[in-house]
Amino acid sequence: MSERKKTTIVLFSGDYDKAMAAYIIANGAAAYDHEVTIFHTFWGLNALRKDEPIQVNKSFMEKMFAKMMPRGSENMGLSKMNFAGFGPKMIKDIMKKHNTLTVQQLIEMAQEQDIKLVACTMTMDLLGLAKEELLDGIEYAGVAAYLADAEEGHVNLFI
Amino acid sequence: MSERKKTTIVLFSGDYDKAMAAYIIANGAAAYDHEVTIFHTFWGLNALRKDEPIQVNKSFMEKMFAKMMPRGSENMGLSKMNFAGFGPKMIKDIMKKHNTLTVQQLIEMAQEQDIKLVACTMTMDLLGLAKEELLDGIEYAGVAAYLADAEEGHVNLFI
Amino acid sequence: MSERKKTTIVLFSGDYDKAMAAYIIANGAAAYDHEVTIFHTFWGLNALRKDEPIQVNKSFMEKMFAKMMPRGSENMGLSKMNFAGFGPKMIKDIMKKHNTLTVQQLIEMAQEQDIKLVACTMTMDLLGLAKEELLDGIEYAGVAAYLADAEEGHVNLFI
Repeated sequence: MSERKKTTIVLFSGDYDKAMAAYIIANGAAAYDHEVTIFHTFWGLNALRKDEPIQVNKSFMEKMFAKMMPRGSENMGLSKMNFAGFGPKMIKDIMKKHNTLTVQQLIEMAQEQDIKLVACTMTMDLLGLAKEELLDGIEYAGVAAYLADAEEGHVNLFI
Repeated sequence: MSERKKTTIVLFSGDYDKAMAAYIIANGAAAYDHEVTIFHTFWGLNALRKDEPIQVNKSFMEKMFAKMMPRGSENMGLSKMNFAGFGPKMIKDIMKKHNTLTVQQLIEMAQEQDIKLVACTMTMDLLGLAKEELLDGIEYAGVAAYLADAEEGHVNLFI
Repeated sequence: MSERKKTTIVLFSGDYDKAMAAYIIANGAAAYDHEVTIFHTFWGLNALRKDEPIQVNKSFMEKMFAKMMPRGSENMGLSKMNFAGFGPKMIKDIMKKHNTLTVQQLIEMAQEQDIKLVACTMTMDLLGLAKEELLDGIEYAGVAAYLADAEEGHVNLFI
């Protein structure tokens, strides 16, 4: 049995600021030598979408959802002060000035640090998202796999 | 002392999608033989409301809250893409197609699996909710009881 | 090594009701003899702002954020049923009737109970908040300090 501490995060939210918080904690925990898993479910799956449009067969409903949901982390809105999309631009201008990593860069860092990025297959089905639409190098699993990680976890968060 | 692992969830949110996530994790954990508690507070109490109107003596403010808050899980909105109530209909159409359980069915399953459903008495008072308005077979407690469970918990989430 | 149980809360949200839940759990845990830390990040920092305006040199963006964000817990909105600021007034009227503590009073109680209130320095920078603008007697730290507390925590929540 591994002696490393474990951190698991359920990323449910599709907000840029919450994804940022999740990935900062995750990368921090990995730097701290934790085994880290981020389980992306519901709107949190959007952080894993590729930013180009991918051709996939979809039902009418699935097309509507796919169209309305942000394609990748950099197209997400804010949980507060979004101002019809102006808020994220403000935040990103400030982040640039402070040399803060974007969520996209935080996701790349997470992959370099071997953080396990998991997409929840049940909610992928619900929202009509196909594997081709999501980033390469991620894993696919359900709630049972999440719980197997979380019950060994020292820090378990729902974001 | 019990050797079973424990999962506790504070369900604060009154959103359909978040209640769904909470109850899917809870039912998964129970299937995994965890002792599970869901502590419903603030807007999360609405998931426990009966869907018919119940005659209770209320102050003016309490009547206003009671009227504006959803009566039971199936009347809740979504945290994202609610579109004035159209979003939940879309999600439920898709859920039907995928044979996904509704939150109401997930709550019933939770009760069958002996998940402890607790209503926070302090916030019941604040929102003017009476026991008669909530589902049968649930428990009533405060933050001390929650903490007694959570401090033994292996997976503790705030949703 | 301390034998006391530990509770850590990340307060990310800037909503009055969520801050209230966070501080009720925190004060409850402290009363239960837990060592408690609340790590305020992003919009949760607003709970720690002094309510009077403080003269600090700020860039244009920082001034805009400072202006738009609530100054202290008692100026926060609700996560649900905010009704352009009318919701918080309703809740506070009811709280008064029930002799419920306000968030401001809960923060004071937290300080009396030696709960460690931490402001996240990285997001203070992002939102342009200076130490002079925040309550006295709090600590300043980053994600590493949070993780050091959380990995020893028995109850870790993200609110």
